[in-house]
Amino acid sequence: MQVLDVIAKKRDGVELSREEIEFFIQGYTHDRIPDYQAAAWLMALFLRGMTDRETHDLTMAMAHSGDMLDLSDLARSTDSGRKLLVVDKHSTGGVGDKVSLVLAPLVAACGVPMAKMTGRGLGFTGGTVDKLESIPGYRTDLSVEAFKAQVERIGVVLTGQTADLAPADGKLYALRDVTATVEAVPLIVSSIMSKKLASGADAIVLDVKLGSGAFMKTMEDAEALADALVRLGQQAGRRVVALISDMNQPLGRAVGNALEVREAIDMLQGAGPPDFREHVLTVAAEILQLSGRVGDADGALTLVLDRLSSGAAWRKFRDMVEAQGGDVGAIDDPEKLPRAAVVEPVPAPRSGYVQEVRAIDVGLAVVALGGGREEKGQAIDHSVGVVVHHRVGDLAEKDAPLFTVHANDEEKLEAARERVLAAHTFSDEPVQPLPLFYRRIAD
Amino acid sequence: MQVLDVIAKKRDGVELSREEIEFFIQGYTHDRIPDYQAAAWLMALFLRGMTDRETHDLTMAMAHSGDMLDLSDLARSTDSGRKLLVVDKHSTGGVGDKVSLVLAPLVAACGVPMAKMTGRGLGFTGGTVDKLESIPGYRTDLSVEAFKAQVERIGVVLTGQTADLAPADGKLYALRDVTATVEAVPLIVSSIMSKKLASGADAIVLDVKLGSGAFMKTMEDAEALADALVRLGQQAGRRVVALISDMNQPLGRAVGNALEVREAIDMLQGAGPPDFREHVLTVAAEILQLSGRVGDADGALTLVLDRLSSGAAWRKFRDMVEAQGGDVGAIDDPEKLPRAAVVEPVPAPRSGYVQEVRAIDVGLAVVALGGGREEKGQAIDHSVGVVVHHRVGDLAEKDAPLFTVHANDEEKLEAARERVLAAHTFSDEPVQPLPLFYRRIAD
Repeated sequence: MQVLDVIAKKRDGVELSREEIEFFIQGYTHDRIPDYQAAAWLMALFLRGMTDRETHDLTMAMAHSGDMLDLSDLARSTDSGRKLLVVDKHSTGGVGDKVSLVLAPLVAACGVPMAKMTGRGLGFTGGTVDKLESIPGYRTDLSVEAFKAQVERIGVVLTGQTADLAPADGKLYALRDVTATVEAVPLIVSSIMSKKLASGADAIVLDVKLGSGAFMKTMEDAEALADALVRLGQQAGRRVVALISDMNQPLGRAVGNALEVREAIDMLQGAGPPDFREHVLTVAAEILQLSGRVGDADGALTLVLDRLSSGAAWRKFRDMVEAQGGDVGAIDDPEKLPRAAVVEPVPAPRSGYVQEVRAIDVGLAVVALGGGREEKGQAIDHSVGVVVHHRVGDLAEKDAPLFTVHANDEEKLEAARERVLAAHTFSDEPVQPLPLFYRRIAD
Repeated sequence: MQVLDVIAKKRDGVELSREEIEFFIQGYTHDRIPDYQAAAWLMALFLRGMTDRETHDLTMAMAHSGDMLDLSDLARSTDSGRKLLVVDKHSTGGVGDKVSLVLAPLVAACGVPMAKMTGRGLGFTGGTVDKLESIPGYRTDLSVEAFKAQVERIGVVLTGQTADLAPADGKLYALRDVTATVEAVPLIVSSIMSKKLASGADAIVLDVKLGSGAFMKTMEDAEALADALVRLGQQAGRRVVALISDMNQPLGRAVGNALEVREAIDMLQGAGPPDFREHVLTVAAEILQLSGRVGDADGALTLVLDRLSSGAAWRKFRDMVEAQGGDVGAIDDPEKLPRAAVVEPVPAPRSGYVQEVRAIDVGLAVVALGGGREEKGQAIDHSVGVVVHHRVGDLAEKDAPLFTVHANDEEKLEAARERVLAAHTFSDEPVQPLPLFYRRIAD
């Protein structure tokens, strides 16, 4: 088989065979196919599209490009002896999305093991690994053995992706990022699902973000992605539920790594912003049902609310931090988490109903403060960020705090103030709040 | 300006500005833009196409990526004091295409200077530089100074392309070759014309080959390319004539480097196959008219026939070989050119009218004999090749020689015999000869 023939075939809009896709992915992963040939192929894939069959074969080839974790021995049994499915969760990325920090220990406290590998932030979106690293000492580079041992022992682990899992995705993603080939549905689908399949999940809840602070800006695009993800899951023999959720405004109030950990701790201790609580509870209830732990939505919600209010979820989080070498003192007293030198509340310029809190601008303001990265490998400042005090539909009052900037540099603080102010718009007429979820798509 | 934005714009089918195209070409030529980004851009150009304006801007950016030769002081004056245009000629490449070897000295003998840079063969097509290098000592690496001095002195030069001329084309062509982005008309046009514009021609005759032994396999493709070349020439302020000529069968009889030089010498000395003679005379007459040397086609043909039969063209060829360090003894006695160890005539398997002499198969047979290269930089054997004895429409006689193989290896000889035999098909009914030229397209 010739590399050039495979590129030319897709260039001419002809469907590729499984063998051709595997040949390309294997060759690229093992450096037999150079970046420039992969780049031409990716652009041809982008412009010519892929059939469901091709997308499935691409995903499987990428999943099998490295180790395939087998977590089947982790699957706990219910009281009736039925095996639970191992469930994973993935978010397409947004601003203020600290869901996994609460979700993983909460689900584990409900008796469903949550062994999750997660990523770093890039561009305007944050990443769970960065947020966790706000906790002094917390290790996000667990080996596969340590990963499995920990979930066996305490039922929960949140760590970084190992390089041995779906290495083709790591290489291809880095190349897509610099060749304007990120936004194609088949490429997004195969990137997400190859990692999830390689990390051993039987069932997956996908949180597809929609709005200014997400990659998917229109309902049409979000639905196309969600549909494709669910179809692919079916083809691969996994149970998949996709939830399309709002990302026009930040989720919760805090945006910035240590600030988001604090908000997650608030929720685990029974407080936290209502929208963030509701979002986490909804996803947790989906997971309990998908895993087989609970038969219906009401029962699922009752269970997660119980484990949250009983403190079981908080104790599970504490166990996880301890198990991964984190400083438990810093979560018991979040004042010990990294703190910025300047904390400045910014007053509302006028009274009125909040019409917009544009998530992308809040996200970019936090990146500019040093809390995110514009390029891979950049160091970040865990202490900085922005806390917004209102959501769309709220009534803001002139001169009362609209948001608070946490910064370590006066100039950057000034820039963040301007940008986040501009991200807010107001109306004299009442404004409808935004929904949390738009659609649920299941197989 | 951001590289990613320029890639994404073309990916989305938006017309690029001149500044964006120049930015990309400059960046790629000077290694600021890596191969993988250029590869993604090329595939987007391939699939989205380019407007005439974009193609023109791409060509000019590539032409200006290195030195621009100024040959205006070479332009000779007619007896009436009018300046002649400097004319160049380009062939899109074929099998047995030794036209430049005769054309350049012939045109120069008619008083029109011919300063031509030319290329090496790749794949099934031969290259004039390789053919010239069959002549012991012939230098094809003249400096720009030596190039200009020689044409000033004797009116003719045939040498390799200098690396300083349109370096963007050299880099892009090498990348297109390995990313399945060769066959797009805007990319072919810009590649051909950027070199011609950089090498200083005022007027250009383009020999667009059509048929099994050419890159353009259909009249539609050949016409699209010829039209685009002529339009681009107009936009760039050059006079351009495109001739669409046949390349279903080899041009002339000889295919292989030294064998083709011998056939060129035959013609310069008044003999040579009629089809090859007619092809060269037609192109030469076009050049004399384009340059302003002769006012009409009849006058042009009379002049070239005179300079051919008088021996003036042969003497010009001899002067050129001598000026470029070649062994004049080897052209005075072509038996001294490189000769293969085995020369084997292959008899016709049957009697009949020749229906096909598939040029691509003859070309590939010569490559396999060692006379061409499958990869850049490969060494070649100048002595080997194939001489066909019939053209389409000729009556072949069973057991009389159909073609002759010149080889240095028994196994390769066997393979060439098989391949060239299979390239011939026969008919019991008379077969129409193929035309030499299909169309003439002028501005």
